[in-house]
Amino acid sequence: MRIGLFGFGRAGRAVATVLLQSDEAYLCWVIRKSKLLQHRSVSEFLGIPEDAGGQGLIFPIEEWPSAKLFDEHPVDVIVDFSSAETVLSYGEEAAKRGIAIVTAISVYPPETRDYLKKLSEQTSVLCSPNITIGINFLMLAAKILKAIAPYTDVEIIEEHFKDKKEVSGTAIKISETLALPCADIKSVRAGGIVGRHEIIFGFPYQTIRLIHESIQREAFGNGALFAAKHLLDKKNGFYTMENLLLPYFNLRSFLC
Amino acid sequence: MRIGLFGFGRAGRAVATVLLQSDEAYLCWVIRKSKLLQHRSVSEFLGIPEDAGGQGLIFPIEEWPSAKLFDEHPVDVIVDFSSAETVLSYGEEAAKRGIAIVTAISVYPPETRDYLKKLSEQTSVLCSPNITIGINFLMLAAKILKAIAPYTDVEIIEEHFKDKKEVSGTAIKISETLALPCADIKSVRAGGIVGRHEIIFGFPYQTIRLIHESIQREAFGNGALFAAKHLLDKKNGFYTMENLLLPYFNLRSFLC
Amino acid sequence: MRIGLFGFGRAGRAVATVLLQSDEAYLCWVIRKSKLLQHRSVSEFLGIPEDAGGQGLIFPIEEWPSAKLFDEHPVDVIVDFSSAETVLSYGEEAAKRGIAIVTAISVYPPETRDYLKKLSEQTSVLCSPNITIGINFLMLAAKILKAIAPYTDVEIIEEHFKDKKEVSGTAIKISETLALPCADIKSVRAGGIVGRHEIIFGFPYQTIRLIHESIQREAFGNGALFAAKHLLDKKNGFYTMENLLLPYFNLRSFLC
Amino acid sequence: MRIGLFGFGRAGRAVATVLLQSDEAYLCWVIRKSKLLQHRSVSEFLGIPEDAGGQGLIFPIEEWPSAKLFDEHPVDVIVDFSSAETVLSYGEEAAKRGIAIVTAISVYPPETRDYLKKLSEQTSVLCSPNITIGINFLMLAAKILKAIAPYTDVEIIEEHFKDKKEVSGTAIKISETLALPCADIKSVRAGGIVGRHEIIFGFPYQTIRLIHESIQREAFGNGALFAAKHLLDKKNGFYTMENLLLPYFNLRSFLC
Repeated sequence: MRIGLFGFGRAGRAVATVLLQSDEAYLCWVIRKSKLLQHRSVSEFLGIPEDAGGQGLIFPIEEWPSAKLFDEHPVDVIVDFSSAETVLSYGEEAAKRGIAIVTAISVYPPETRDYLKKLSEQTSVLCSPNITIGINFLMLAAKILKAIAPYTDVEIIEEHFKDKKEVSGTAIKISETLALPCADIKSVRAGGIVGRHEIIFGFPYQTIRLIHESIQREAFGNGALFAAKHLLDKKNGFYTMENLLLPYFNLRSFLC
Repeated sequence: MRIGLFGFGRAGRAVATVLLQSDEAYLCWVIRKSKLLQHRSVSEFLGIPEDAGGQGLIFPIEEWPSAKLFDEHPVDVIVDFSSAETVLSYGEEAAKRGIAIVTAISVYPPETRDYLKKLSEQTSVLCSPNITIGINFLMLAAKILKAIAPYTDVEIIEEHFKDKKEVSGTAIKISETLALPCADIKSVRAGGIVGRHEIIFGFPYQTIRLIHESIQREAFGNGALFAAKHLLDKKNGFYTMENLLLPYFNLRSFLC
Repeated sequence: MRIGLFGFGRAGRAVATVLLQSDEAYLCWVIRKSKLLQHRSVSEFLGIPEDAGGQGLIFPIEEWPSAKLFDEHPVDVIVDFSSAETVLSYGEEAAKRGIAIVTAISVYPPETRDYLKKLSEQTSVLCSPNITIGINFLMLAAKILKAIAPYTDVEIIEEHFKDKKEVSGTAIKISETLALPCADIKSVRAGGIVGRHEIIFGFPYQTIRLIHESIQREAFGNGALFAAKHLLDKKNGFYTMENLLLPYFNLRSFLC
Repeated sequence: MRIGLFGFGRAGRAVATVLLQSDEAYLCWVIRKSKLLQHRSVSEFLGIPEDAGGQGLIFPIEEWPSAKLFDEHPVDVIVDFSSAETVLSYGEEAAKRGIAIVTAISVYPPETRDYLKKLSEQTSVLCSPNITIGINFLMLAAKILKAIAPYTDVEIIEEHFKDKKEVSGTAIKISETLALPCADIKSVRAGGIVGRHEIIFGFPYQTIRLIHESIQREAFGNGALFAAKHLLDKKNGFYTMENLLLPYFNLRSFLC
C-alpha cells in the first residue's frame, strides 16, 4: 500500500514516523508548504533507518501540482494532516485516479465537506476529526452500554495539560454521541497530561469506567494506517471511523 | 412479571431486595431450606415498605413440593440463587409449565448442566455464573477490541478483599474469553475491596482501560431482573448473558 | 478502654459494629433518643457474637441523665455520632470526670464549638467532621506535596451516588486546606458510588494522584477507635484528627 | 546557579531540555563521550531558543580533563546522567573546588559508592537512582501511612511498555522501603506505557491509592533541578532525595 502524506507539522511527523516503521505501508512522499528540507527524505530527517534509499521524499506543495505529483509518484491512499483548504488543491485529481483519501482535519467548512462528499462518488473518502482507534472504540462501546442500561448515570471526565484552554473536542463528541449535555463535561487541566478521557457509567450497585489515555500523538499514525487499510476494500463512498469499526461489533461471527 | 426465588442466603437476599423495589417484577415467593421465617414475608423481613400485603412469602422447601408450589402460587420466571442440586427438585415441573428459569449458580456438575439443556427444549433457560450486566458487557467489549486491535497487549488486574483465597472466577472467565493465559492474571488482595476488575489494552501510543467496580451484591439482582425480562420474549432454548446482550451490539440499528 | 456511644443511626450502628469487634475497646453502652430496643444489647441487636453477656447496653437518653449514667456505667471515652445539641446535655458531667470526648458531628453552631473548647480545659476533646484515617491522611499528604511543588496544578474530583445534592463537604475541606477555589471541585454523581475523592497534582512531566475510596460507613468506626486510643495519652486540650496524625509525619524518627 | 552536565543520552538530553528552559539554572556545558556535535551548543541542537549565544557547550570528555574544564568553565553544581565510572574521572577535582554533585546513576559498585562518600567530606553529594520528585514523595507518604495504619494490606502495581523485561527498579525500592516481599509486586507490561506506579492501602472499609504516572523522561530534569537547588544550602555530606524532602514533612511549621 503506497501512501502519500499531506502535512508535516507535529501530527504529520508523528504519522510519518508510524508509517515508516510499518510493514503494511510504504510512505512515498510528504507534501508540505515550506520549501525547507526538500531533496531530503523523511526517513533520514526523522532518523529512522531503512533498508535502502530514503523513504518519503519531501516536496514543497507549490512545485508539485497534484496532477504531476500523482503521475510521477503514484500512490494508493492519501493521508491528510495538513489544513482544511489543502484538499481543494488535490481532491479532483485524486478522485479521478481512484486514490483513497483519509483526512483527519478537525473541522471543515460546510462547503469543503460537500466537496469531499462529491469526491466520494468517485473514490472512497474517510473523514474523522479524532482518528485514533481507541477513542472511536470507546464511543461505540459507550453507545452500546447506554442502550443496554439506559437508567445509568453517565459522566465524562477529560484531563489535559494546563495550557489547553477549551473543552476537549473529543469529549464534546463523546457527549453528543451519548446525548448528554456538553456543559456537564468535567475538564481537568493539570501539568503535562497528554490526554485522558473517562466515561463513567453509574449503576445502582456497580460502576463501569471506560478510559482512554493518550501517550503520544503517534497514535494518530496507527489510526490513519488502520483507516487506509480498511478503505482499500471498500466501495466508493464517504466513511467515518465508526463505519470502519462497525463490522467488528457484529459479534455473531466470532461467538460460538 | 411474577417471579419466584430459590435461595435466601446473602446473594438471595440482595436479589430479593432489588426485585421488591422494582416496578417491573412482582416477587411471589422465596423458597429456602430452613423452616425459620416461614409465614413471614420478605418485604417485612427486609424492612422494605410496599403498598399492601406482604410481598414474597417465605416457604421452606420441604413443605412445598414443586407441583403444589407452581399450581397454588404460579409464576412466570424462576430465579435460582440456591445451590447446584436444587434445580433437580423443581426443573421438570417448571419446564412442563413453560416457566422460564434464570440460574446464577457458579458451577454445575456436567450431568446437571445436561439436565438444564434438556429442560431448555420445553422452556427458556439462562445459566450464568456472573449475572451482572457490567461484567458481561465488559467481556463482550473486550472481545471486540481484541478483534479490532489484535496486536495490543492485554492484561487483567482483579482486586478483592484480603480473605479471598483463590483467583477471581470472573477474571478467569475474562481471561479465557480473550484467549489469555490465566496464570498472567494479577490478583490484588487488600482490606475490604468488594470487587474490581480491570482489563488493560496497551497500544503503542495509547492505552484503553475497561474497569468494573462492584459496590454491593445487589448488582446480581439487577442482572437477574434484566435476564428475566429478556427471557420472556425468547423462544425455548439455552441462553447465556452474552446471548441476551448480543442484539445491543448490532449497532446498525441505532447508528444513522 | 471503656467506650460509651451517643447516637445509633446509620453511622452510629456502623461505629458500634467496629467497636464490638475490636480487641482494644469495650463498648459499655449506647445512648439513643428512641425508647425502642432498651433492655437489649447492641451485640445481640447487630448479631455480633461475643464471649459472654451482651456488650453495649441500649439506653434511651431521657431515662439516663448524664451524672447517673457516668456513675453507674463509667467509661474512659465518649464517642458522639448523634446530633449537634446532644453534647450540651452531657459535656459538663463528662469533663468533670475527665472522660475524653470524640465527636464526629459535621457542623456545630459557633456557641457549641465554644462550649467544646471550654470543656477541653478539663479533658481532652477531639472534634472532626470526617473522622476517617484515610481522608485525614490524604489531606496532610496533599498539603506536603503542595509545599514541595508549589508550581503544580492541583485538581479535585469527588464522586458520589446520584442523589447526593450538594458538593462533598470533605472535598470542600480538602480544597480549603490546599487554598484552592471550591468552585473548581469536579463533582461526579453516578449510580451508587459510596464516595471517592481524588486529588491530582499535575507536574510538567509527571502526574501524582492521591485517591480515597469509601467502601462502607464502618470506616468511621476505625477512625473513632484511632482517635479514642490516641486521645487517652494526650493532655487536656482541643484536638483535630490532623493533630493526632502529625507525629507520624515526623519522619526523622523512623528514617535511618 | 551554573550547572555542568555529564551524559547526553536520552535521559541527559531530557535533563538538558529542562535546565535550558529554567530561570533558576544556567547550563554551562555538557560532557559526552562522543566527539560528534562538538563546537555546537545544546540549545541550538535541541532547538530551544534563548536570548543570546548558545547555552550549553558540547565537549567530548577526552579533550577536557576535569581540572581544565572546571578552571576554564567553572560551575556550582555537576549533574551526572552518564555511567557509573564517569565520576571517578572528575570527582576529586570537583570536591576540591566545592562543586556540589547530583548523580542519578542507577547502580554504583560498592567501591564507587565509597568513593562518593569520601568526596562528600569536601562537598555535598546527592545520589539517587530515581531522581523524580513524584516517586520520592510517594515513597515517603507510603512509609508514613504504613506507620499510621500498620494493619492495612499494601500492594504495589507497576505498569510499563511491553519491552521492559525486568521488574521496575523503582517498584523494588518502594517495596523495600515498605518492608514488603518484592516477589509480590504486580508487573503489567502493555504497549507503550511510559511508567506508572500504584501503591494500594487496603483498610477494612476504605482504600487509599497513591499513584505516580510518568509522562516523559524530562521529569528527571525537574528532579535534578530540585536537588541542585536544595544542595547549595546544605553542609558537606552525602544526601538522598529523601533527605531533601524531609523538611517538608515537618508539618508543625505550616499548620496553625
